[in-house]
Amino acid sequence: MIITLKQRTTKKQVNEILKKIVDLGFSYHISKGESRTIIGVIGKNAILTKENFENMPQVESVTPISKPFKLVSREFKKENTIVKFGNNKIGDKKIVVIAGPCSVESKEKILHIAKILKRMEVDGLRGGAYKPRTSPYSFQGLGEEGLKYLYEAKKITGLPIVSEVMTPELVPVVSKYVDMLQIGARNMQNYYLLKEVGKINKPVLLKRGLSATVEELFMAAEYIMSQGNSNIVLCERGIRTFETYTRFTLDLNAIPIIKNMSHLPVIVDPSHGVGVRDYIPALCRASIAAGADGLIIEVHQQPELALSDGSQSLFPEQFMQVMKELKYVAKAVGRYI
Amino acid sequence: MIITLKQRTTKKQVNEILKKIVDLGFSYHISKGESRTIIGVIGKNAILTKENFENMPQVESVTPISKPFKLVSREFKKENTIVKFGNNKIGDKKIVVIAGPCSVESKEKILHIAKILKRMEVDGLRGGAYKPRTSPYSFQGLGEEGLKYLYEAKKITGLPIVSEVMTPELVPVVSKYVDMLQIGARNMQNYYLLKEVGKINKPVLLKRGLSATVEELFMAAEYIMSQGNSNIVLCERGIRTFETYTRFTLDLNAIPIIKNMSHLPVIVDPSHGVGVRDYIPALCRASIAAGADGLIIEVHQQPELALSDGSQSLFPEQFMQVMKELKYVAKAVGRYI
Amino acid sequence: MIITLKQRTTKKQVNEILKKIVDLGFSYHISKGESRTIIGVIGKNAILTKENFENMPQVESVTPISKPFKLVSREFKKENTIVKFGNNKIGDKKIVVIAGPCSVESKEKILHIAKILKRMEVDGLRGGAYKPRTSPYSFQGLGEEGLKYLYEAKKITGLPIVSEVMTPELVPVVSKYVDMLQIGARNMQNYYLLKEVGKINKPVLLKRGLSATVEELFMAAEYIMSQGNSNIVLCERGIRTFETYTRFTLDLNAIPIIKNMSHLPVIVDPSHGVGVRDYIPALCRASIAAGADGLIIEVHQQPELALSDGSQSLFPEQFMQVMKELKYVAKAVGRYI
Amino acid sequence: MIITLKQRTTKKQVNEILKKIVDLGFSYHISKGESRTIIGVIGKNAILTKENFENMPQVESVTPISKPFKLVSREFKKENTIVKFGNNKIGDKKIVVIAGPCSVESKEKILHIAKILKRMEVDGLRGGAYKPRTSPYSFQGLGEEGLKYLYEAKKITGLPIVSEVMTPELVPVVSKYVDMLQIGARNMQNYYLLKEVGKINKPVLLKRGLSATVEELFMAAEYIMSQGNSNIVLCERGIRTFETYTRFTLDLNAIPIIKNMSHLPVIVDPSHGVGVRDYIPALCRASIAAGADGLIIEVHQQPELALSDGSQSLFPEQFMQVMKELKYVAKAVGRYI
Repeated sequence: MIITLKQRTTKKQVNEILKKIVDLGFSYHISKGESRTIIGVIGKNAILTKENFENMPQVESVTPISKPFKLVSREFKKENTIVKFGNNKIGDKKIVVIAGPCSVESKEKILHIAKILKRMEVDGLRGGAYKPRTSPYSFQGLGEEGLKYLYEAKKITGLPIVSEVMTPELVPVVSKYVDMLQIGARNMQNYYLLKEVGKINKPVLLKRGLSATVEELFMAAEYIMSQGNSNIVLCERGIRTFETYTRFTLDLNAIPIIKNMSHLPVIVDPSHGVGVRDYIPALCRASIAAGADGLIIEVHQQPELALSDGSQSLFPEQFMQVMKELKYVAKAVGRYI
Repeated sequence: MIITLKQRTTKKQVNEILKKIVDLGFSYHISKGESRTIIGVIGKNAILTKENFENMPQVESVTPISKPFKLVSREFKKENTIVKFGNNKIGDKKIVVIAGPCSVESKEKILHIAKILKRMEVDGLRGGAYKPRTSPYSFQGLGEEGLKYLYEAKKITGLPIVSEVMTPELVPVVSKYVDMLQIGARNMQNYYLLKEVGKINKPVLLKRGLSATVEELFMAAEYIMSQGNSNIVLCERGIRTFETYTRFTLDLNAIPIIKNMSHLPVIVDPSHGVGVRDYIPALCRASIAAGADGLIIEVHQQPELALSDGSQSLFPEQFMQVMKELKYVAKAVGRYI
Repeated sequence: MIITLKQRTTKKQVNEILKKIVDLGFSYHISKGESRTIIGVIGKNAILTKENFENMPQVESVTPISKPFKLVSREFKKENTIVKFGNNKIGDKKIVVIAGPCSVESKEKILHIAKILKRMEVDGLRGGAYKPRTSPYSFQGLGEEGLKYLYEAKKITGLPIVSEVMTPELVPVVSKYVDMLQIGARNMQNYYLLKEVGKINKPVLLKRGLSATVEELFMAAEYIMSQGNSNIVLCERGIRTFETYTRFTLDLNAIPIIKNMSHLPVIVDPSHGVGVRDYIPALCRASIAAGADGLIIEVHQQPELALSDGSQSLFPEQFMQVMKELKYVAKAVGRYI
Repeated sequence: MIITLKQRTTKKQVNEILKKIVDLGFSYHISKGESRTIIGVIGKNAILTKENFENMPQVESVTPISKPFKLVSREFKKENTIVKFGNNKIGDKKIVVIAGPCSVESKEKILHIAKILKRMEVDGLRGGAYKPRTSPYSFQGLGEEGLKYLYEAKKITGLPIVSEVMTPELVPVVSKYVDMLQIGARNMQNYYLLKEVGKINKPVLLKRGLSATVEELFMAAEYIMSQGNSNIVLCERGIRTFETYTRFTLDLNAIPIIKNMSHLPVIVDPSHGVGVRDYIPALCRASIAAGADGLIIEVHQQPELALSDGSQSLFPEQFMQVMKELKYVAKAVGRYI
């Protein structure tokens, strides 16, 4: 951590800072430049005390040298973390494809699409039972009833289930039915929820917030890991930009960043990321080529009748075509589906 | 609501859409252009059925004509809503200034700053007891203990209290102590929390999310109002942009937009919005000149020792100067402090 | 084009608008909703008169139904445009890879890297002679001298050349030496420059601006095409977002959008788009998988000595590895390198 | 400037860097942390050699301690620069208000509005003769004819003139007629144009680019100053964000930043910044309250007939009301109009 002092800082003010550094158990180096003095603070996790210094009036800025996350970093753990989701190993050589409707709409429909998807060789089933909707007047999901239908679909098809949990008190009920709990983009910094899923033993699919930097995504994962649960799958799902032809801007730059800085696996949700059906297949291919460990894709047997997100759900035949294409791309990057 | 069809849509496909419109209880106008057919859907709240149409394959786009919010709109209620916060009337002619530290750090400190602020004629006291922090290793707040100290400060100074509630199950305990519950920016789309504060009878300070459009802020308020609570104060607190000299970009454009489209009062949080102490006074003045109904400002007796957000907290003497300046600006726009 | 009127518009005001529509040679449909009247304007290119209506006081908004670009649209020309660059056909089945240093630094260096790249089977050579630099104190390029070196490199290797032109009066001199003129991101809306390259007969590589929507990129291309030059290659090179781990956010969503809406070919510049050497190979693969027609990549024999953009230039051996990987990916999507 | 090395850097690699530092004429401090070595580079303008280091493979990052601009910085020149525009002194105690139509449309119209504005006590006249338009099919301005009309308006009213110059070769002709040359937002990084206006003796109104950071605005001004012209007025005119209710997001945070870091005066263009007529008066007031030295506002006698930007032009009576309000706000912050 580097502390840059304002110009014309007095000797006394410098000493106040040095004393604070020593009091906190760190050592330091001073460097007097032509116009400014800078102080390097040395010691493990010095960055965690950043705020102690940056609010001192003689300090101009505090520059981190190390990153503010630890447990999720590749420096902390060199080898890739592999997360078990049913029989799948997310982060291993096989690409994991999870598919399903945006919302669970009825028992019949979810069983129907689950069987179709099973035949198309997906690895897991998605479906929302509790739905975060921008409007209070939109369909809010079937709740626990929806989870039961998902569970039934699992029993019939063998597909493991991922579904969203929106608030801490629902963690127990959602955990009862699903194989992986999803934290949605709008809840990425819902810290009570992060802590709660950090205490259980199930995998967590953590989606990047709409305006979260990759570093903030890591910090959210750090919340979960710091509670003891390291079965975390990160998920890129699009960030908010000025572009209007797409719903969000899927940020595939995040894939190599995550692979470089963290040991956690990462999958991509192109359905929410781009939000326009016809553009999704291209971004599925690109995600795998960029190094993602899997995909989570919205597929609906009749998108035109979907109660939510219909315009971004693939038709089953489109999805089948996507699966075919992805096999080639996976092979091209030394993996398989 | 306008439905634009893709080129080369067949007569049969058009009829499917018309049937759906009629089935939903609306009427329509068809307009055949040179290259496309467009259909106007007519009827109250037709926009709420937007999704029913936009996922039909023959539909190119659905364009809202009316806004997706109702209860918070100025069309629904013409006169300004005035929210009582202690003896203050937020939204009335008097500008309401709320001040206090980022976090409640100890009983002594909160009582001390509360007395200083009371002397400086603030209208309310802020202070975080439950703190949303990016890092799990940062100070997380004193919890209920902090609320008790705030309550004590209120008893001594008479200042009404606002403090953040981060999760639905904490709504009862926070409500017990405070006069207004704050929903933080990171929770603006925490729908369970919005619904929960919608059921109580206390004012709610709803902060705009880091990447929320003003329309999404209205939709979040609509969640609260649709549960029965219309004592909502909106709060602009900065949005995320590419600029790096400030923590966020305080968006004062939001003030005239909100005043135009909604009847709800709006205040500004320049401390989080800009995040740099020396720039805050200018933005306090600008907020009032733009038409804001109040301000919420971080003040700390010793920012250099603050456990959170020290670098954006004003020194008491700075704040006193701000108050003086604001009186002139308020008068210039026909209001007072 | 749909004109939505404000509430409480009088009959007289509506008639004013109708008259204007007819005067401009269009016809109309009126649709009276519960609370608003909307008017559909019918006729070719009605959208080009948008401004005539949106500044009328009784008008709330004007909604385009058709897009504001014509010549670049797929509706105007169904089949893909193929742009000849030397012997390459950009937009055809073969993926075109252009590589080279950020700047031409000396004759020896450009000849050296050109020969290396030729052996690695690239299709074209890039190199900046006139450099747009944020700082007036940075290396500004060798100017015409640099173009001569590029031309010499072409004579020796046979590789066609692309280089940037920064201002209209340099179009003749740059045209003399290069096979394709590049319009840089910061000049995407330099309209005098666009018109100037629209009048010549050489291919133009048009880079997307840092904060340009895809629609604005199309409009910039429309400027060039409207002057008569339709040899345009669009280039995605990263947009500005809040993310700080990368220099820009390479927006691969743009690829399927461009392929859908326009007949023009599109290539990707991952070097500027992500700006971090180690992340570039992943994004090269992703670009091709997403459907790009080519890549333009910075390679430098000694990036650590580069006079500009060294930290995003690949080492030759890295680039050789990238080329190998890309062959597999190209094949996976039915193309080749 | 701080150079952070990668972990496991060898002694030899460190020495390579140290040699380079000394070769460039700087001195250094080494600081060995627990996991990393950092090197402080000491000497005037060391930051200008940033690129020499950041592309070395053993370097993880280079952190600037000082800013990359010099001549425009407040450290270089303490007292405010005052720019003469006709008889006005921009940057002095009096707020300077410039108004006029977006484009010069005819001689009659510009004379008419100029006389109205003169009566309303504006300090200068704006009007575009060369217009940067997104679409090649939109009105492109009257060119030199428009400049002549502006000049005539000046002769009649005495109001000094500001008008945009879009390309270097037009600098002589525009200079002939106007009192201040405007560099538009889309040309903020048109370096040939910046250098050209840097060589003349006229004031330059430099608008911030749509996606330019304040630092980049400073760097653009540095280009002009480094050529010898220091008569620069900076102009905040809105940045691009995700918000859709406004055309751009006027960033008033920029005002205190500019006032703090630079000696150059700054004015605000709320017309382009927010783009919606009804929101402009509030943002005019806010700009002055935030500390801006002036405003540039679009006013049109008949906005509904304007050939460009009509929907953001004020009616004369609206503008008169704005002027009245601004007098109070200016007084409130110790200035006058």
